[in-house]
Amino acid sequence: MINRLAIIGVGLIGSSLALALKQAQFVGHVVGCGRNQANLKKGIELGVIDSYCDSVVEAVKDADVVVIAVPLSSMQSIFEQMQGVLSSDTVVTDVGSTKGSVIEAARVGLGDRLNQFVPGHPIAGSEKSGVEAGTAELYQNRKVILTPLQENRQSSINEISDMWRQCGAHIEYLSVIHHDKVLAATSHLPHLLAFSMVNYLSGLNDHDEIFKYAAGGFRDFTRIASSDSVMWRDVCLANGDALIELINGYKKELDQVAEAINHQDAEKLLKLFGKAKLERDILVGNC
Amino acid sequence: MINRLAIIGVGLIGSSLALALKQAQFVGHVVGCGRNQANLKKGIELGVIDSYCDSVVEAVKDADVVVIAVPLSSMQSIFEQMQGVLSSDTVVTDVGSTKGSVIEAARVGLGDRLNQFVPGHPIAGSEKSGVEAGTAELYQNRKVILTPLQENRQSSINEISDMWRQCGAHIEYLSVIHHDKVLAATSHLPHLLAFSMVNYLSGLNDHDEIFKYAAGGFRDFTRIASSDSVMWRDVCLANGDALIELINGYKKELDQVAEAINHQDAEKLLKLFGKAKLERDILVGNC
Repeated sequence: MINRLAIIGVGLIGSSLALALKQAQFVGHVVGCGRNQANLKKGIELGVIDSYCDSVVEAVKDADVVVIAVPLSSMQSIFEQMQGVLSSDTVVTDVGSTKGSVIEAARVGLGDRLNQFVPGHPIAGSEKSGVEAGTAELYQNRKVILTPLQENRQSSINEISDMWRQCGAHIEYLSVIHHDKVLAATSHLPHLLAFSMVNYLSGLNDHDEIFKYAAGGFRDFTRIASSDSVMWRDVCLANGDALIELINGYKKELDQVAEAINHQDAEKLLKLFGKAKLERDILVGNC
Repeated sequence: MINRLAIIGVGLIGSSLALALKQAQFVGHVVGCGRNQANLKKGIELGVIDSYCDSVVEAVKDADVVVIAVPLSSMQSIFEQMQGVLSSDTVVTDVGSTKGSVIEAARVGLGDRLNQFVPGHPIAGSEKSGVEAGTAELYQNRKVILTPLQENRQSSINEISDMWRQCGAHIEYLSVIHHDKVLAATSHLPHLLAFSMVNYLSGLNDHDEIFKYAAGGFRDFTRIASSDSVMWRDVCLANGDALIELINGYKKELDQVAEAINHQDAEKLLKLFGKAKLERDILVGNC
């Protein structure tokens, strides 16, 4: 049970966490912290948070758990604002999509309180954003990756694990480097490809016609291109090296298809597409 | 009302058409034609077709409308089998994803019966295939593109338009060249990108881990990679020039993102992703 939970950044991820914990009766008071007062008021109206403030200092004071759910580029400033006011009993976690950059920010911002920070990343989301998009079910049967620090006490790690389990999530532990590499491939690259796809087609001469005839496949393929652009800018800046390597590798994969088309190599094309279908069917449990 | 409808190739598309027309009571007898007897028997069981045969000659005899729903590479052979047996009252259409190649096949195969062929393409589908995947609702509020030939009688065009409208579809007319160009961008390219994405990731060292942490975004993004590989091989072979041009253009779009990441150009990244989000939100009616 968390008596007082502070959520810094009341968007889709933070709101869904608050709603899930309330549904599980695992939280007493939820204080939301942010700069957009209208959004915070909406959070009260929707029963997501119980009170709000715009001061990180005030929000984290007396909190048992602090969850930082702001874009990656704002993390360091949030950590810095906590310095000197964070009680030694408070456990801090985050929900950032990359972990290396957040840990670096925490190291700078939290100083000797770094041991109280357990880095986390729920593998769940939506192309929608904002407090209204939150749902208590977002983390049901989803994975939450924790990348604990050597400095962490086991009790702090347990507290954050328990919190996510109460939301229906499964906990996985990864090293920071492994997390950032795997997520670059499975999440960051697809987002870049989808953004680029929409931009490319919208720049073509007959883009109105092209979008007009877009069917369900195109909509699903580009769903993630409706994601929050600040968040994805920050991911690119934080995990750039991994992403550039993946973009280059992916371009070579495309070259293989282009070459097979160019040579009218029916056998090669069938093999490539058949392999992808099989892998994808296995992935979603159709095989 | 179609008294006798012949469906050559009883897969997802053909089955869904038969089911929709039956639901609309717009068809008398549906004969299915194919080489897979188990599939055809299943079609009878499911009430998709009323009878079946493995001979195109037999299937098209006395049919009012013939719908060819086979992979593009099998089209010419089907047209050739009709030659000499097609009644002058029968109207033939197809559902192929490219139109230039099908019309070429019809020109060769149908000879002086070419005027009876109205090329068509329903913009609907699924990553699933086979007679069991068919649903009467597949074409509800979807577009069907017709690319009529100069040789067509207006009455033939009307007959095919009416058939699709009975399934709940909206009819659009495009030139052959325009159809193939637009569909290459909005449908063929995304499929190639999704197939390539799955293949690329499955070739990486830690692909098991990568797929393990795949979330909803990745699943949606790659849904079309579970599509039928024969169909997409044929699309690539039939619409290769347009596709290679698009692959090259898309690679340049990716280069822009990679360059912005490389230069840590936050402003450029935000602009690129913001533009994509806006375009995609407009596309799906969120703006």
